[in-house]
Amino acid sequence: MKINRNRLHEIIFEAETREGKMFDLILMAAILVSVVVVILDSVASVRLRYHMLFITLEYIFTGLFTIEYALRIYSVKSPVRYITSFFGIIDLISILPTFLAILVPGAQSLLVIRIFRLLRIFRVLKLSRYHKASYYLIRSLQASRHKIFVFLATVLTIVVIMGALMYLIEGADSDFTDIPTGIYWAVVTITTVGYGDISPVTALGQMMASFLMIVGYAIIAVPTGIITAEIVRTGKFDNTISCPNCSKEGHDSMASYCKYCGHKL
Amino acid sequence: MKINRNRLHEIIFEAETREGKMFDLILMAAILVSVVVVILDSVASVRLRYHMLFITLEYIFTGLFTIEYALRIYSVKSPVRYITSFFGIIDLISILPTFLAILVPGAQSLLVIRIFRLLRIFRVLKLSRYHKASYYLIRSLQASRHKIFVFLATVLTIVVIMGALMYLIEGADSDFTDIPTGIYWAVVTITTVGYGDISPVTALGQMMASFLMIVGYAIIAVPTGIITAEIVRTGKFDNTISCPNCSKEGHDSMASYCKYCGHKL
Amino acid sequence: MKINRNRLHEIIFEAETREGKMFDLILMAAILVSVVVVILDSVASVRLRYHMLFITLEYIFTGLFTIEYALRIYSVKSPVRYITSFFGIIDLISILPTFLAILVPGAQSLLVIRIFRLLRIFRVLKLSRYHKASYYLIRSLQASRHKIFVFLATVLTIVVIMGALMYLIEGADSDFTDIPTGIYWAVVTITTVGYGDISPVTALGQMMASFLMIVGYAIIAVPTGIITAEIVRTGKFDNTISCPNCSKEGHDSMASYCKYCGHKL
Amino acid sequence: MKINRNRLHEIIFEAETREGKMFDLILMAAILVSVVVVILDSVASVRLRYHMLFITLEYIFTGLFTIEYALRIYSVKSPVRYITSFFGIIDLISILPTFLAILVPGAQSLLVIRIFRLLRIFRVLKLSRYHKASYYLIRSLQASRHKIFVFLATVLTIVVIMGALMYLIEGADSDFTDIPTGIYWAVVTITTVGYGDISPVTALGQMMASFLMIVGYAIIAVPTGIITAEIVRTGKFDNTISCPNCSKEGHDSMASYCKYCGHKL
Repeated sequence: MKINRNRLHEIIFEAETREGKMFDLILMAAILVSVVVVILDSVASVRLRYHMLFITLEYIFTGLFTIEYALRIYSVKSPVRYITSFFGIIDLISILPTFLAILVPGAQSLLVIRIFRLLRIFRVLKLSRYHKASYYLIRSLQASRHKIFVFLATVLTIVVIMGALMYLIEGADSDFTDIPTGIYWAVVTITTVGYGDISPVTALGQMMASFLMIVGYAIIAVPTGIITAEIVRTGKFDNTISCPNCSKEGHDSMASYCKYCGHKL
Repeated sequence: MKINRNRLHEIIFEAETREGKMFDLILMAAILVSVVVVILDSVASVRLRYHMLFITLEYIFTGLFTIEYALRIYSVKSPVRYITSFFGIIDLISILPTFLAILVPGAQSLLVIRIFRLLRIFRVLKLSRYHKASYYLIRSLQASRHKIFVFLATVLTIVVIMGALMYLIEGADSDFTDIPTGIYWAVVTITTVGYGDISPVTALGQMMASFLMIVGYAIIAVPTGIITAEIVRTGKFDNTISCPNCSKEGHDSMASYCKYCGHKL
Repeated sequence: MKINRNRLHEIIFEAETREGKMFDLILMAAILVSVVVVILDSVASVRLRYHMLFITLEYIFTGLFTIEYALRIYSVKSPVRYITSFFGIIDLISILPTFLAILVPGAQSLLVIRIFRLLRIFRVLKLSRYHKASYYLIRSLQASRHKIFVFLATVLTIVVIMGALMYLIEGADSDFTDIPTGIYWAVVTITTVGYGDISPVTALGQMMASFLMIVGYAIIAVPTGIITAEIVRTGKFDNTISCPNCSKEGHDSMASYCKYCGHKL
Repeated sequence: MKINRNRLHEIIFEAETREGKMFDLILMAAILVSVVVVILDSVASVRLRYHMLFITLEYIFTGLFTIEYALRIYSVKSPVRYITSFFGIIDLISILPTFLAILVPGAQSLLVIRIFRLLRIFRVLKLSRYHKASYYLIRSLQASRHKIFVFLATVLTIVVIMGALMYLIEGADSDFTDIPTGIYWAVVTITTVGYGDISPVTALGQMMASFLMIVGYAIIAVPTGIITAEIVRTGKFDNTISCPNCSKEGHDSMASYCKYCGHKL
């Protein structure tokens, strides 16, 4: 029995064995198909024709994911830690809405929540060759989190103040009916999205808006600079080997000899 | 009495002591809540129900901020320098509108000005661990200010000329009623905001607009490049070793000798 | 006859000889003019006046490109490999629609496909001084393909989840009629395009949208950082010194010894 | 007389002497004020009230600029080279429209051309401390011109092909009335401007549009990477001094001693 559990854990949680890889591929396919079903089921014209098919598929997928969830709980050493982990919660959210929709009347609207299944893809990704790439990206973001926080605090402050000023300038009879609307407009503008559902009409308002746009256009350079600098730095230490002779570091990942003294690495 | 003033200064202006940190946290909370009150008070439906609560809260916050302002003036060595400093003015602007609204009839519209209180958050931030991050960002921006000025002058020139040309091409009967409107459109376009409230309809106008968009899309790379290069360079001097001879800092990570006095590091 | 084929290959496929360069220039001009004809022919007012001219020109260009296609097949060593190559298929797509439009009634709408001729420009570009520049760009993109894949997977996941959530929040009676529409809106928003044909009206929807915009505004920094770091790195190996011992290239500008075999450079 | 010409040249073309700087400042002010006049004169409500003032000011400025133009021709060694230079042509365009509007009836609409006066600002800028900053920016752009050309050629190809495909998909009865309109839409979309005056309505069209947006969002990273890498590289050689002892380069601009061997630079 003990071997069985270890074997199960290997297949379900890892991807080193042939069975483990196979399991991951099937799981990935099942997740993607079930997400497509959720999406298509929301389109009125498609639902009219295929609703029965979608419901059947949904029951099958929920059944499979429920068995998988049970096996995961069974095969891990600490079930509590798994259940309360990020992926444990996502796994539960993936199956819960379908059960709720059967038991509780009116819970149909919650079925959309099943879309969070898509996040399970990242568990599979975690085990693949994309792991290293994700790792570098996440490390770069973490290393620059203080700078990004300062940047976001600045942007949010600008957005709140500009939103309030535009409410004052354009007046409550314009598109800018209250400060929250003004703040929403300022976010739409500083991020250069620009829906155009709310836009200034007074000369002063248009001048303020122009100023905000140029600010938004210019300061996008700041997070880009922060993250680029961090990725450049992280990339440099891709290889931490130091020369056994001159102990200099910074060697290329393909290097076999020290580029400073010629000694074998 | 003298000790009392120093103690006060320590609590209000610094964050090294337990009381200083506590003061900062309470101040931050008070600022955020009072800003949320200003924002919510502008929403008609919310004001109808909670206006009395908002007014009461506002009086309490103004009272607290007034006491704080008085204590700040009392505890600093040079009150005049504090009052005329950036944060001194912001502190005054935070309390003035409420007093004015009581005294001067029709000054109600000025109440929005209280939103500038939000800037006081940055005083608290100044003393925290985000200080170093802000410092690097500001130094990077300062070091590249000449390049950014040249960039902005170029953008403004393009915007003015394109605005005038579009007014000429599209004609005064179109959305482009005058040159300022044309300039506003050019800013909306070159920054890639694109509201769509003003857009060209003639073939030549659309060609000019396409040209402007591609210019805007390409030259965003310039400020990004400037700031990134500066952040990469600033990051290189993260090295905190100071010279044992001249105690200057800012040495390259690979440096063995002080670049200012030649002493061994 | 054999020499003739080699000579033809030299003229058609290479650009080292005077005739080869001449051929490239004429081909490039023919491609550009024929693409302009396709574009203008779609404009109702222009077609009315010049349709006969456009048809005549199209027959001439199709004739020329057909002869060229035949000569290419004749002059290459392995015709099958050429025909199934990327440029071989583009060459066929450039002439096929015109023949189909004559033979099959109702195939007129396929004439737009001729626009793919434009891609043939890149064959000429491949042989010019822009080759090195393209080479660096493509190598930078290739080297960062894993990171870009992780980034795109993240963006697509955010977009699908946000699209579904907005459909839930705004309700099927709003602009967000189904999840695909929600996903389309999320793409329009996260990329900061912002048409404004679909936009949220509820307070919660606008808050979610603001969040998505700021996410989109901030994470554009990630691909920029990835590609910049790669271009900076690629640029470092601009150094064209090859090792006198193993003749490998790609040495760092400061390297004194070959990093592959340890020989002095 | 000869000295007089040299002196004039010094004052008008250079900024080293006190008179030269004074001349530049006055010229800059005159240019800015005259451009503001051109802009305000286009606003119907402002023109109604101040048209006479604007005409008077315009005659004064045109008079001054004409005298300046004559003096420039007089003081340069080679008048022909000056007249046919970039700034020579801009100087002429600055005064010509006013004369034409007097002589030729109906040339009023050409008055907008006077806006090109604004470009004269850059002559003044050329002589100031912003010169070095502009120089680095221009050198960075020049060094990366081949890569930028390849990038723009790629963008234009994508835009033309996508424009034609959308015309095919959405059909001539939609917003996409012809291929040029489709191309205009593709430019608006790939640059993330997104006016929303033209937008796809079919499912396939929206999918193609989503694809184009994500492409546009991702490839903006390419020019940014190119220019950033170039600015980083240009910045590195800000200082070309090599150590007289160990002859290593790459010293900081403020360095007095070699950071590698400690020798005086």
